[in-house]
Amino acid sequence: MKNYEQLINYFEVQLAKIEYNNQPVELYSPIKYTLSFGGKRIRPVTTLMSCELFCDDFKRALPQAIAIELFHNFTLIHDDIMDNAPIRRGKETVFKKWDSNIAILSGDTLFALAYQYAQQADKEILHETLSVFNKTAIEVCEGQQFDLNYETNNNVSVDEYINMIKLKTGVLFGASMKIGALIGGALTEDANLIYNFGVNIGLGFQLKDDLLDTFGNEGIFGKKTGGDIVSNKKTFLYVKAMELADNDGKEKLFSLYNSENIEPDDKIKQTKELFLKYNVDKAANAEIDKYFDVGILCLDKINIPKDKKKYLLDVAVKMIDRNK
Amino acid sequence: MKNYEQLINYFEVQLAKIEYNNQPVELYSPIKYTLSFGGKRIRPVTTLMSCELFCDDFKRALPQAIAIELFHNFTLIHDDIMDNAPIRRGKETVFKKWDSNIAILSGDTLFALAYQYAQQADKEILHETLSVFNKTAIEVCEGQQFDLNYETNNNVSVDEYINMIKLKTGVLFGASMKIGALIGGALTEDANLIYNFGVNIGLGFQLKDDLLDTFGNEGIFGKKTGGDIVSNKKTFLYVKAMELADNDGKEKLFSLYNSENIEPDDKIKQTKELFLKYNVDKAANAEIDKYFDVGILCLDKINIPKDKKKYLLDVAVKMIDRNK
Repeated sequence: MKNYEQLINYFEVQLAKIEYNNQPVELYSPIKYTLSFGGKRIRPVTTLMSCELFCDDFKRALPQAIAIELFHNFTLIHDDIMDNAPIRRGKETVFKKWDSNIAILSGDTLFALAYQYAQQADKEILHETLSVFNKTAIEVCEGQQFDLNYETNNNVSVDEYINMIKLKTGVLFGASMKIGALIGGALTEDANLIYNFGVNIGLGFQLKDDLLDTFGNEGIFGKKTGGDIVSNKKTFLYVKAMELADNDGKEKLFSLYNSENIEPDDKIKQTKELFLKYNVDKAANAEIDKYFDVGILCLDKINIPKDKKKYLLDVAVKMIDRNK
Repeated sequence: MKNYEQLINYFEVQLAKIEYNNQPVELYSPIKYTLSFGGKRIRPVTTLMSCELFCDDFKRALPQAIAIELFHNFTLIHDDIMDNAPIRRGKETVFKKWDSNIAILSGDTLFALAYQYAQQADKEILHETLSVFNKTAIEVCEGQQFDLNYETNNNVSVDEYINMIKLKTGVLFGASMKIGALIGGALTEDANLIYNFGVNIGLGFQLKDDLLDTFGNEGIFGKKTGGDIVSNKKTFLYVKAMELADNDGKEKLFSLYNSENIEPDDKIKQTKELFLKYNVDKAANAEIDKYFDVGILCLDKINIPKDKKKYLLDVAVKMIDRNK
């Protein structure tokens, strides 16, 4: 069995080997640029790992791992246009470095390229893996649309928020693992268990993101905290605070998120005080633990010897129990 | 065998039966809106027709016909953002009626939905039909990027222009027919012949578009001619004129396309005079005839009795020999 380090090293080498058309450069340069950013590559690594859980050859799932990573990067390119985000992983985003037309079209091309890899599976299993891939692609789009909607919706419930991050983030982790497992020969029941493991760990991962962005230790986190607050992002912390606060607290939080004249540092300070007053940091940690536990329960139930699951468990811990 | 009218009626009924998710409405309303515009539906009709050429059941290719039409409409939604086009088929475009974020994301969703239909093929043929679909999707993106590039490139050759419209328009016609044929059981050689038939007819179709936009009879064409000239579109007429004109003619045409102070009607009049001076209307007609003839030769070579090909021939004639 291979661990995370071994698989990410293997994957990076394979990803770098992809040969793209040369022309038009306006399409392929942004694609190569985006894929060269690196990143944690958690999704494709778990595809390979999930495959190896059910067969002795993780390389069999390489095309699917590439498909997942290309798809993920396509969503980043388009999301950055929609979110008007200038920086991603410390680099200029595609739409900033080039323009939004090039970002739309190179994203579309990357989506189509993802399918070129997604279709590389044995004919006995292709329809099933593609069904997972397609369903997930649609759900990720739905999640992004809900996220956009929530920017201007002042009554987002905790349930709605959880459903949104499940679609936007959770299901792709689930699909990464389920597709890998199916390629490895998993039976339906085990494939569904690993899917639910992935979705739940993905939910925990996103909630941890919310928590770190506001309450992370800047020295370890590596960037300034409070970005979500400054950009009025309705994170778990915000929607939970709105649920728990009394009328006075609700009004304060609402006015902090709707005031244009407040200094960013002051806004962060006041918002964090409110979050702490209503213990939403603790609520977030409890929620993360809940999804982690549900996910691990699914992993446990998979009909494979426990020691073989060690590296997937390591990934789950790495995703949840982190400071950056 | 079914003719165009019968197949478009069947297809419209089936397309209208598609059930979409209800939420988020911001994604699915633009999709339903776009698909309700109607249009000629040439691509999906030729998918059904090409299937019936090789088997007795055109309905077998319905999912693929839907996939092709959804994909085509996805490209229209994204192209309209990039071209800043307010109107399509007499209606407001998605990005105008909603906004560009919704247009990006509903387009992405439509692309993913297209794949949900594209994957509905017998497992013995699925990999092959998907390969055609994916390759075509990538080429259409490349064609659109070349088209965007040519807006600011003053040295587009006729060959480059033909290659661009082949990618942007031709290959999707080819793929529509090839996928239908493969679903119908066509052998590789026949599938490739019908692909080349489609590509060539598609090229003729686009060149006819160029011609009608400038030289169409407004009463029959149904809209004002000269739109391409006013928007400085580098059509076949323009690139051919630039190839044939002497230095004086080249300078005049260049300055007409780069002047911001000229009245639209005057610009159209002067440009058309230059086009006629260099006989590019005749050159366009000769080019259309050339592609039509090459296409028909491919259709002829397909190893099927001639009378069965009648309706595909009708479509080719309808695409090329039209006044609107």
